[in-house]
Amino acid sequence: MNDITEAEAQAGTEAEAPLLVAARGGRPSRTPVWFMRQAGRSLPEYRKLREGTAMLDACMDPDMVCEITMQPVRRHDVDAAILFSDIVVPLKAAGVDLDIVPGTGPVVANPIATEADVKAIPELHEEQVQPVVDAIGLLNKELGDVPLIGFAGAPFTLASYLVEGGPSKHHERTKALMHGNPDLWHALLGRLADITAEFLRVQVQAGVKAVQLFDSWAGALSERDYREFVLPHSTRVLSGITGVPRIHFGVGTGELLPAMREAGADVVGVDWRTPLDVAVQRLENAAPHLPKPVVQGNLDPALLFAGVPALEREVARIKREGEAAAGHIFNLGHGVLPDTDPDMITRAVELVHRQG
Amino acid sequence: MNDITEAEAQAGTEAEAPLLVAARGGRPSRTPVWFMRQAGRSLPEYRKLREGTAMLDACMDPDMVCEITMQPVRRHDVDAAILFSDIVVPLKAAGVDLDIVPGTGPVVANPIATEADVKAIPELHEEQVQPVVDAIGLLNKELGDVPLIGFAGAPFTLASYLVEGGPSKHHERTKALMHGNPDLWHALLGRLADITAEFLRVQVQAGVKAVQLFDSWAGALSERDYREFVLPHSTRVLSGITGVPRIHFGVGTGELLPAMREAGADVVGVDWRTPLDVAVQRLENAAPHLPKPVVQGNLDPALLFAGVPALEREVARIKREGEAAAGHIFNLGHGVLPDTDPDMITRAVELVHRQG
Repeated sequence: MNDITEAEAQAGTEAEAPLLVAARGGRPSRTPVWFMRQAGRSLPEYRKLREGTAMLDACMDPDMVCEITMQPVRRHDVDAAILFSDIVVPLKAAGVDLDIVPGTGPVVANPIATEADVKAIPELHEEQVQPVVDAIGLLNKELGDVPLIGFAGAPFTLASYLVEGGPSKHHERTKALMHGNPDLWHALLGRLADITAEFLRVQVQAGVKAVQLFDSWAGALSERDYREFVLPHSTRVLSGITGVPRIHFGVGTGELLPAMREAGADVVGVDWRTPLDVAVQRLENAAPHLPKPVVQGNLDPALLFAGVPALEREVARIKREGEAAAGHIFNLGHGVLPDTDPDMITRAVELVHRQG
Repeated sequence: MNDITEAEAQAGTEAEAPLLVAARGGRPSRTPVWFMRQAGRSLPEYRKLREGTAMLDACMDPDMVCEITMQPVRRHDVDAAILFSDIVVPLKAAGVDLDIVPGTGPVVANPIATEADVKAIPELHEEQVQPVVDAIGLLNKELGDVPLIGFAGAPFTLASYLVEGGPSKHHERTKALMHGNPDLWHALLGRLADITAEFLRVQVQAGVKAVQLFDSWAGALSERDYREFVLPHSTRVLSGITGVPRIHFGVGTGELLPAMREAGADVVGVDWRTPLDVAVQRLENAAPHLPKPVVQGNLDPALLFAGVPALEREVARIKREGEAAAGHIFNLGHGVLPDTDPDMITRAVELVHRQG
């Protein structure tokens, strides 16, 4: 605990949670670990609970959100809970006509193409996500010292769903709008940044101890495009959050790490393609005036299929490489894959926590 | 033409094709351009010709291969033809039980999991791809000065199809085999390298003027994994090819470019995420003893949906950035997307060829 400041230490047990110590650039008593998508499809108790309930209904049922969020904490001894939700939840809550179709993903009734479409995107009001507020209240009672991470999808990733009308491999309509009509693009991302910022503000006010901004598809962009068309909007979202650490994550973002930090991240999520020590070096070279960076990552989720000896080697390597950072939160380089054996997740947590 | 060697100049008009001059690190009379997947789905004349013929049957019909390969050359004035084929063609020809299912992609009857499975992978014999040889013969008569590029899938990408049983988003079984059973993995890639090397040898002997090795999925790997589990096998494939330039391409390979060059590439394919001047710098830093690199790329295929003014800006930028290389072959950073308007491809070629 020696690395955290006196003020943080005075904040009591919550500030001493390993995840929060690492997020602030300190050396906690053990390497904190949680796994993106730890709450969800890989757990039989989750699949049983979800039977007969549509995804977006589950996300708006406080008891169900609480239970699903707690399941991996009980089972795996992870160092954080991640709020069970979906990146389209605030859009749906605000009134955008969309649904999550099993096997497909989000499907948007009226994809965005015109100025009128953009103007028709509603604002998000706190009362529309009251079930999420209630779930956070329930969770903070159950979680004790384990911090709850709130989350939202970043404006670019939300825009891709809205413009393509659903999940997209190549994001061609999104990029066509971005390059073909930059004014409309920025208007769209401005609206989405408002929704995302409000959703995160509500979560922080309700008591989450950290937030993660998921820009899942940002890795589809070059750094140039990211900086011109995305960074200003994600910056606005992240700069509105105070008092809790902000984690910023995307997949395939090796070229974007410095820009994603610049957006206002306290912790930069790194996928498995870039070793953590290389990521730290890249972040330091890009911003030598900033404090030493804090990173989160970066086990390839496929390694949870490779057997214990391989998993053990990879966990040890990643912990070693993570020492290059001021703080390291262990995680996957992407979310838990649906067919993952939950026992391998538990095993991975044990390996991360093991000393030496 | 001053940059090509005397021997190359003596080879006559074929050696003077802009693509071949650039591939050898020279400055041709115009920036050569071709587009991955230029032969195929985006062209109405292709869709008409293919009606009623299965993909793998089309790939083994010399007249059809010749016609489909010629269609984009006639329509777009590109500087190279790319042999119409599919990366599973040599596997199918050798006797692996697989098919290409429309809307899904390759589907393998018995996915590879055991030593017996690996030992059962047959060798490829020249006569099994005689229709491809015949197609190359027909094409060389029709093409005149326009060089024909042969191609094959790299061992890793082939392995992913064989292990997963089809296209895969996360390659989890493939990576599990790689890390969990490295001996079996290397045995598998050795077999696939044999097939790929033979397929390319046959194409070169039949008269293709360059080859491209497609490691479509290599970008799913970290550099460490690529170097340990893939590079030796792709090196064996590329080192077996002499007398024609070797292009080596994958998507999302910003971290892998130096390793992919090291495998024996004369030309390194770069996707749109890494600007060409950055790619050249990265290649030079990694191998200062080698000649200045030659690159291919790297227009985002989504830009063909963004309208002419945006396309014009991007083409100009990429040509400018390509000047950092010894030679630059203009291409997309990935294949032509199925819904692309063919007129935009023609327009892109005109923009690349425009001086200044």
